[in-house]
Amino acid sequence: MSLTLYGYWRATAPYRVRIGLALKGLAYDYRAVNLAGGDQHAEDYRAVNAQALTPALGIGAGVFLNQSLAILEWLDETHPEPPLLPGDALGRARVRAIAGMIACDMHPLNNLRVLQELARRGQDEDARNAWARRWIEDGFKALEPMVAAEGRGWAYGDTPTLADCCLIPQVFSAGRFGVDMSAFPAIAAIAARAEGHPAFQAAHPSRQPDAV
Amino acid sequence: MSLTLYGYWRATAPYRVRIGLALKGLAYDYRAVNLAGGDQHAEDYRAVNAQALTPALGIGAGVFLNQSLAILEWLDETHPEPPLLPGDALGRARVRAIAGMIACDMHPLNNLRVLQELARRGQDEDARNAWARRWIEDGFKALEPMVAAEGRGWAYGDTPTLADCCLIPQVFSAGRFGVDMSAFPAIAAIAARAEGHPAFQAAHPSRQPDAV
Repeated sequence: MSLTLYGYWRATAPYRVRIGLALKGLAYDYRAVNLAGGDQHAEDYRAVNAQALTPALGIGAGVFLNQSLAILEWLDETHPEPPLLPGDALGRARVRAIAGMIACDMHPLNNLRVLQELARRGQDEDARNAWARRWIEDGFKALEPMVAAEGRGWAYGDTPTLADCCLIPQVFSAGRFGVDMSAFPAIAAIAARAEGHPAFQAAHPSRQPDAV
Repeated sequence: MSLTLYGYWRATAPYRVRIGLALKGLAYDYRAVNLAGGDQHAEDYRAVNAQALTPALGIGAGVFLNQSLAILEWLDETHPEPPLLPGDALGRARVRAIAGMIACDMHPLNNLRVLQELARRGQDEDARNAWARRWIEDGFKALEPMVAAEGRGWAYGDTPTLADCCLIPQVFSAGRFGVDMSAFPAIAAIAARAEGHPAFQAAHPSRQPDAV
């Protein structure tokens, strides 16, 4: 199976999928979609992802998957080793909850199209950055005790999971918006560990072909 | 196993879980969390859901699950019949993608805490409703051809799935914000079908004990 990832170096949702692909040791072609330049609105990209968002994953025969969490679940089902989810239902619920806290309640409030809409509504850059920090800090406040209680080196347990695929890109995004991570030591410790892990290193925005 | 759902009649995320519980035929205790009155910020509720959001699902022995999609996946794993996900990996990816398009990219932009933040930033009610409509309409535009192509009575295939658990509450929310559903006939047809389905009827906001 030939995989093609459509992403943008700095966007956090494709970054999640890159981590999953790297953890699984899967090779893929990379197609940069320049979100800052508006490439996502091109008609040929709409045929790949009707939402005009990244990521999309081509899996061959003209079939494209969208939505980062759905893609990661598909990767885990079709390439089970190493697993991105724990072996028990409660553990899977915990990991998926962490993923949801980030992918539903933090990141979508701060992505490009939302910040552009806020700008159209007269919110200047300082106001937009404060907006982004509010949702990230609210989310990290709830996440910090969860990962402190249930993580043993990673967000849940002692191996990287779907939760870490979401958490590490969210920490990267937090840095862009000036969130003070000293308030979240358990999360910061996971991020520090990821800096030394080859899969997380390979997936980092700075290592992508379209990084500027 | 004794289940306790913490929700609010009008909120769309607990509405999703009510549909899942009803489709599975599971009995549960219902605890109303009055979001309009700020009950979600009470310290005893923070112990149930650290995000101060709904839903949460108590599963006994002081264990609470959060995040609606994680809860629905847990319900499907622990009570497999009838299934909320298709039997093949590509089908599951499609259903989870629809769920993500709603639960990540539509609903979180329009929930109470976000509308309150917009009000604090000087956006009046008309401006807030236009904000909500924009994200719902963007999402429905991408969803409409997907469900038209792959739904056969429901959002994906011919039985209700996780995708319908998310779609029907989002249509309810669209009504509150004044979205014109005539632009989305395939979605509207699914919503009409749900109106006649007992599980969707039982889960409807108007049927909850705290409805006003």
